[in-house]
Amino acid sequence: MSGTILGVSLTPHHPLLDGRTGDSALVTAYSGTRPERLPVWFMRQAGRSLPEYRASRAGTAMLDACLDPDLASEITLQPVRRHGVDAAVFFSDIVVPLRLVGVDVEIVPGTGPVIASPVRTLDDVARLRDLGPLDAARLAPVTAGVERTVAQLDRTPLVGFAGAPFTLAAYLVEGGPSRDHLAARRLMHADPAAWAALMDWTAEVTGAFLAAQVTAGASAAQLFDSWAGALSLADYAAHCAPASARVLAQASALGVRTVHFGVATGELLVAMRDAGADVMGVDYRLPLDEASARLGGATPLQGNVDPALLSAPWDVLEAHVRDVVRRGAAAPGHVVNLGHGVPPDTDPAVLTRLVQLVHTL
Amino acid sequence: MSGTILGVSLTPHHPLLDGRTGDSALVTAYSGTRPERLPVWFMRQAGRSLPEYRASRAGTAMLDACLDPDLASEITLQPVRRHGVDAAVFFSDIVVPLRLVGVDVEIVPGTGPVIASPVRTLDDVARLRDLGPLDAARLAPVTAGVERTVAQLDRTPLVGFAGAPFTLAAYLVEGGPSRDHLAARRLMHADPAAWAALMDWTAEVTGAFLAAQVTAGASAAQLFDSWAGALSLADYAAHCAPASARVLAQASALGVRTVHFGVATGELLVAMRDAGADVMGVDYRLPLDEASARLGGATPLQGNVDPALLSAPWDVLEAHVRDVVRRGAAAPGHVVNLGHGVPPDTDPAVLTRLVQLVHTL
Repeated sequence: MSGTILGVSLTPHHPLLDGRTGDSALVTAYSGTRPERLPVWFMRQAGRSLPEYRASRAGTAMLDACLDPDLASEITLQPVRRHGVDAAVFFSDIVVPLRLVGVDVEIVPGTGPVIASPVRTLDDVARLRDLGPLDAARLAPVTAGVERTVAQLDRTPLVGFAGAPFTLAAYLVEGGPSRDHLAARRLMHADPAAWAALMDWTAEVTGAFLAAQVTAGASAAQLFDSWAGALSLADYAAHCAPASARVLAQASALGVRTVHFGVATGELLVAMRDAGADVMGVDYRLPLDEASARLGGATPLQGNVDPALLSAPWDVLEAHVRDVVRRGAAAPGHVVNLGHGVPPDTDPAVLTRLVQLVHTL
Repeated sequence: MSGTILGVSLTPHHPLLDGRTGDSALVTAYSGTRPERLPVWFMRQAGRSLPEYRASRAGTAMLDACLDPDLASEITLQPVRRHGVDAAVFFSDIVVPLRLVGVDVEIVPGTGPVIASPVRTLDDVARLRDLGPLDAARLAPVTAGVERTVAQLDRTPLVGFAGAPFTLAAYLVEGGPSRDHLAARRLMHADPAAWAALMDWTAEVTGAFLAAQVTAGASAAQLFDSWAGALSLADYAAHCAPASARVLAQASALGVRTVHFGVATGELLVAMRDAGADVMGVDYRLPLDEASARLGGATPLQGNVDPALLSAPWDVLEAHVRDVVRRGAAAPGHVVNLGHGVPPDTDPAVLTRLVQLVHTL
């Protein structure tokens, strides 16, 4: 499999894609059937818990690392080599598409993404649109990073990912991380036209970012709506889900399964699935059997080992993982993952042991 | 009504208490019937949104202000004078009982409570217990502040409040605010004996703090479990609710209605009521008719105007408030409030106008 072949535009269930990873444990579970081996990977597995990551990243700003194809590829591969997980997840960040179109955004250590000029009006959104589309030329570092990664992954699938339109919009409106997302939720109601225009724009750029990863060889696409838990169901359904649905449909049309994940979104679970996701990621708060029941037992699930238990004594963690797997059996397919990202202070040896345990279950 | 009379220990439904505020709109609604006037107050109404508060607080650290009876009383009364709300809420902080027993805690502006020595082991909890009980002598500044307040409130009820044991424990274990409360949730599972001892201790001190406010004249008691939304229902029910139940029972035994509130706790709503609360506070995420249905239609509700809309155009806010009131009619009693605290940048005139609107509904 070469970069040239991966460079072609993939049609739904493209045979090249199916031939490489279509029978992998991950894609099988995402497709709603039970593979021989229970698949497992970890959100933020490529990151600060690994000493080799800290060595690779030393001296390079986060977004610069994401946009260096060799470095992003190396970091993406590190946890696959070390842990033997069933999927790689592309090393990137949800604000990468903002940077690629020219938004002044930095990831400030200890804080998170900081946007120099918050977006608060219809004119502000027009200025975003004036930056031009996220086209293939701008996406080249992402495409190159994914191509280099899949060329080395062989039959291990790569999960591409992007932030959902609401979560990107929340960063743009607030200017950075926020606990209550008051400014974003205010704009949604106080100026519905500006909000709709902003969601159109974020859906376009984050959709292009996700589609580029799939076109370049990612075998699945995960949409992260990190902040959707701040919303009522009514606000989510009316003002956010339609834009997420467009992004998910764009990825689905490229022939991959889509995964949708949010934090503290138990109340939104069905609405997030109904936005067009094949698989629902579930955070640690909601047991998988309960999640499956809410979804009518028809949706494959990903999750939901509690990250807080990664540093508990092994017997406590093991009992919890076995419980997660037992509850996950209620769903038509289950990919073991955490119920949130890997905490930076996690002992990598625990993650490796957890993969080994899951593979015996 | 004098401080002397208020100084006596109140029995359930004590006639002195009933005589002063028992027929108030607030207590009537909390008791599950509909008063003539729909009552309204705002969480954090005594605080940074008011210029008179900023003037009073200037140069005084937050916890010092809480423990100055004259200042705490003045700040408590400010929003009652300005807005004509149906209740005062005592100006204090959930970490005040920690300070009163001698825990080294400061409220750092822009950050929140910071604990000098985080609590991580059974020995650490033993050191907390070595500080001695939160007795009447230590509680004197709180008692004095409440007595001075109710003496000036006349027939307007005062709501006393305290942090729930889990939320206090989360601060103690993390050492400060946290997004995921990983350390607290880890301790809960990794060292159940230390966790249980910590919950016993926090229930004692926060229970004593709440009971002191009621004994000194508060007409209702609200328990804030600010961080409970970080928990699964199973963890909440097994490891946190019993301690909250003890605090609620202690306040109930003093003859006042209890209110229980958390953020993003729709999944925990029934469990939090079943911990022994008379009234459930509901955050802005969950519509009140849906909340009432989950509670079997038998529980009075408080809430849940979205704070994000306080800075929206008036017609948007008014339509939202009318919707909240319409949905709240599903409950046997409804006290209008916000679905979270007053944002510091709120225009106080909007709050006054909102009170006037509610009083016409």
